[in-house]
Amino acid sequence: MEFSAQQIAGLLNGQIEGNADVKISKLSKIEEGEPGSISFLANPKYVQYIYGTKASLVIVNKDFVPTEPVTATMIRVDSAEIAFSKLLEMYNQVKLNKTGISKLGFISESAKTGENIYLGEFAFVGENVKVGNNVKIYPQVYIGDNSVIGDNTTLFSGVKIYSETQIGKNCIIHSGTVIGSDGFRFNPQNDNQKIPQIGNVIIEDDVEIGANCAIDRATLGSTILRKGVKFDNLIHIAHNVEIGENTYIAAHGVVAGSTKIGKNCMFSGQVGIVGHLEIADNTIITAQSGISKSITKKGEVQMGSPAFDANKYRKAYIHFRNLDSIVQRLNTLERENKQ
Amino acid sequence: MEFSAQQIAGLLNGQIEGNADVKISKLSKIEEGEPGSISFLANPKYVQYIYGTKASLVIVNKDFVPTEPVTATMIRVDSAEIAFSKLLEMYNQVKLNKTGISKLGFISESAKTGENIYLGEFAFVGENVKVGNNVKIYPQVYIGDNSVIGDNTTLFSGVKIYSETQIGKNCIIHSGTVIGSDGFRFNPQNDNQKIPQIGNVIIEDDVEIGANCAIDRATLGSTILRKGVKFDNLIHIAHNVEIGENTYIAAHGVVAGSTKIGKNCMFSGQVGIVGHLEIADNTIITAQSGISKSITKKGEVQMGSPAFDANKYRKAYIHFRNLDSIVQRLNTLERENKQ
Amino acid sequence: MEFSAQQIAGLLNGQIEGNADVKISKLSKIEEGEPGSISFLANPKYVQYIYGTKASLVIVNKDFVPTEPVTATMIRVDSAEIAFSKLLEMYNQVKLNKTGISKLGFISESAKTGENIYLGEFAFVGENVKVGNNVKIYPQVYIGDNSVIGDNTTLFSGVKIYSETQIGKNCIIHSGTVIGSDGFRFNPQNDNQKIPQIGNVIIEDDVEIGANCAIDRATLGSTILRKGVKFDNLIHIAHNVEIGENTYIAAHGVVAGSTKIGKNCMFSGQVGIVGHLEIADNTIITAQSGISKSITKKGEVQMGSPAFDANKYRKAYIHFRNLDSIVQRLNTLERENKQ
Repeated sequence: MEFSAQQIAGLLNGQIEGNADVKISKLSKIEEGEPGSISFLANPKYVQYIYGTKASLVIVNKDFVPTEPVTATMIRVDSAEIAFSKLLEMYNQVKLNKTGISKLGFISESAKTGENIYLGEFAFVGENVKVGNNVKIYPQVYIGDNSVIGDNTTLFSGVKIYSETQIGKNCIIHSGTVIGSDGFRFNPQNDNQKIPQIGNVIIEDDVEIGANCAIDRATLGSTILRKGVKFDNLIHIAHNVEIGENTYIAAHGVVAGSTKIGKNCMFSGQVGIVGHLEIADNTIITAQSGISKSITKKGEVQMGSPAFDANKYRKAYIHFRNLDSIVQRLNTLERENKQ
Repeated sequence: MEFSAQQIAGLLNGQIEGNADVKISKLSKIEEGEPGSISFLANPKYVQYIYGTKASLVIVNKDFVPTEPVTATMIRVDSAEIAFSKLLEMYNQVKLNKTGISKLGFISESAKTGENIYLGEFAFVGENVKVGNNVKIYPQVYIGDNSVIGDNTTLFSGVKIYSETQIGKNCIIHSGTVIGSDGFRFNPQNDNQKIPQIGNVIIEDDVEIGANCAIDRATLGSTILRKGVKFDNLIHIAHNVEIGENTYIAAHGVVAGSTKIGKNCMFSGQVGIVGHLEIADNTIITAQSGISKSITKKGEVQMGSPAFDANKYRKAYIHFRNLDSIVQRLNTLERENKQ
Repeated sequence: MEFSAQQIAGLLNGQIEGNADVKISKLSKIEEGEPGSISFLANPKYVQYIYGTKASLVIVNKDFVPTEPVTATMIRVDSAEIAFSKLLEMYNQVKLNKTGISKLGFISESAKTGENIYLGEFAFVGENVKVGNNVKIYPQVYIGDNSVIGDNTTLFSGVKIYSETQIGKNCIIHSGTVIGSDGFRFNPQNDNQKIPQIGNVIIEDDVEIGANCAIDRATLGSTILRKGVKFDNLIHIAHNVEIGENTYIAAHGVVAGSTKIGKNCMFSGQVGIVGHLEIADNTIITAQSGISKSITKKGEVQMGSPAFDANKYRKAYIHFRNLDSIVQRLNTLERENKQ
């Protein structure tokens, strides 16, 4: 795809300054611009780069006043940042606009599929599955029996969805993620027998899940990710967990069985949360922390393993770093007292 | 599948109280019961829910005496808990009872397959592989050359098994798990050259492995999971590790190369264990702990990173939380001594 | 494959001692030798095993003088260790020497493939993909549009490569690893809208990546793994990260967005690194540590979460373990001062 400065200016409702005939075919950072790419300048910190950039086209704010000559063609808009992110989105939509049902895929006869879906090669759709409109099922995806996939949802290559899973609208699930595997429950008192896991997973609308996550089905009932939940990569969610609306979990997060997490929480990387807890809305947890008790007050920030109030933790940790000198002070006091 | 109260009572050898004609088609928790579902009441803590439940059928203990009217039909049995878990198991067996070899799968000519196996679409079985009776190979599974899969084992969609792997009977391996990838061994002294990894992985009977785990083959010899080992999701097992019988490892556990773990151990989530150690039987390790030394005494409980005795750790950690006041006490003493 | 002692001696330029007619078909450790296997003895610690080994053939150093009778045939060479690793490598090359393009795979018409490639069953090669010579694409691999795979690279079963990814020569990527998934970026200020991720991933030559890793594409620009990088299993690399030449990351490592890591670093298991940092060359980080600040001095060793100098950490941690007795000393001093 190639676009002229003229076309881009039209799309963004901007004004051209310089050669209107240049053509671009990709997007770049201004400091990494190449001939044929379009960049943007919004942050004043980056202004130096516009004078040397090799990008053919740069989107700038209306009121930008260059102090040196600019060789790239400029397009002036109300907000360079918003205009550029609009371009990013359009680019992505074109790139990801796969359609058509491959003859090398497999759809069970009892499955029902909506309009305008994409089904890639070697993808599998099980019995009684319902696939909504505009759903994109990339190659090698597996959708187990009786599952439901809502409109406009995208399942990237190799996503594995066990039976009875319900996924809402406008969700994005990245490659390698497994949804609906069995909860980790055995009975050590009874010869380590497996406790059957016959619940399911429910994922509401607007959820995005990164690559290679694993989200277990409930023992009975449902493991639930509420509307707008966002997961990074390699996250583990155990059986019967519930994650509240718009909560973010960064890479390698772990939530153990039956824990309920509130809305709008933010967990940094490698956070672990013990089972059977309740975590209040707006909780923030710092990286590598371990939560071993329920958090009942909204908006707390916790740190450490086991975690407690982050400010207190940081203060204690400063002393921890100085423990050697603290012990030396103690030695001195003991010597003085003996004398 | 729909069953009448009569049929369920027959299966469970129980007595009906109420409308014997109700029909059920799913299982639910008593507090989440819906018309057409069957629940159970065993724990007295949940007794309140039976008076309002919408479940059509509830299994109760023989001696249960309601104190308010119950609208659901009840089935009285010796133990409501055992009866319900019997139902769970039957339900699961029916659900997972896939059979037949898909024409869209691939089995090498030199492979040998047992009776009554299931081979799903786009599954691959390599050269000289031996597949036992009643094995279930879900869609998109890969089984590399010369591997052996024992009777009654289930490999869920997308499991990847490298060549020469041996898997025992009655094992369950969840989606996305990789078995037999190369150990992480290079020679930094010799231009970072790869050390060939030509051993294999041996998994004994009755092992269950969660989703998206990675279990490396041995450099030479075998990485071994003994009978009854249970793994949660996203676990890493390095080359030449051995895990003893019935040991449990929770999500995100990491065991580094050549470490030998004893029997009946229990490791909580995100535990890490250094390479070349020996860990005694019945060891318990708390979440996020890191084991850096061999544990020779059976039944120890360890905590921390690096870990030591859990009771000592908890005591030290209480002081850590109070370090600020400890330092203030020190300040006071120093002031007093100066005066 | 079966080889005679004669053939092996010829390959290794060694001298036979004992029965030259024995045949071997596999490699083993000397302490686990079986009839039909070949082992080696280099480390004097293992010399005891040669007298009882059941291996048919043992490679020994030229100057090895047995003190008891050896029943296995011996091959004397300049260095038993080097000779054996040569054998390992040859064995591996034969084992992994897959070729041919399966009719059950899929290659887009616009893709270009080099000579002597292997394409396994149910593998997918997207539009405009360029695949070099001698590339091995195992069953169920996915290569998204416009990606480039360099000569001699191996992608094991189930690797998922998103569009626009560039992979160099002589790379090995293990099963389940995902390359090019979206960075974890949303705008909580703007209704949690997704920030489009339109950059890519660039992997240079001689990189090896373990199983079930997840490497995100850049928001704009590239996430880059430099020449010779080695990753263990289950590693997460966020958008726009750069990893320097020959850096090693052990299992469960996490590097957050936009961080730049230097050359020849070594990170142990479960290490986490915060976003937007710079880590100097030759940095060593101990297991489970968390790096929250840039490291500017080359060759530092850091430990802890948050991490600091490892020696200081170890000293502080010894005091931490003794905190209870430290507090008791403080109690005693306070009592003395009161009197």
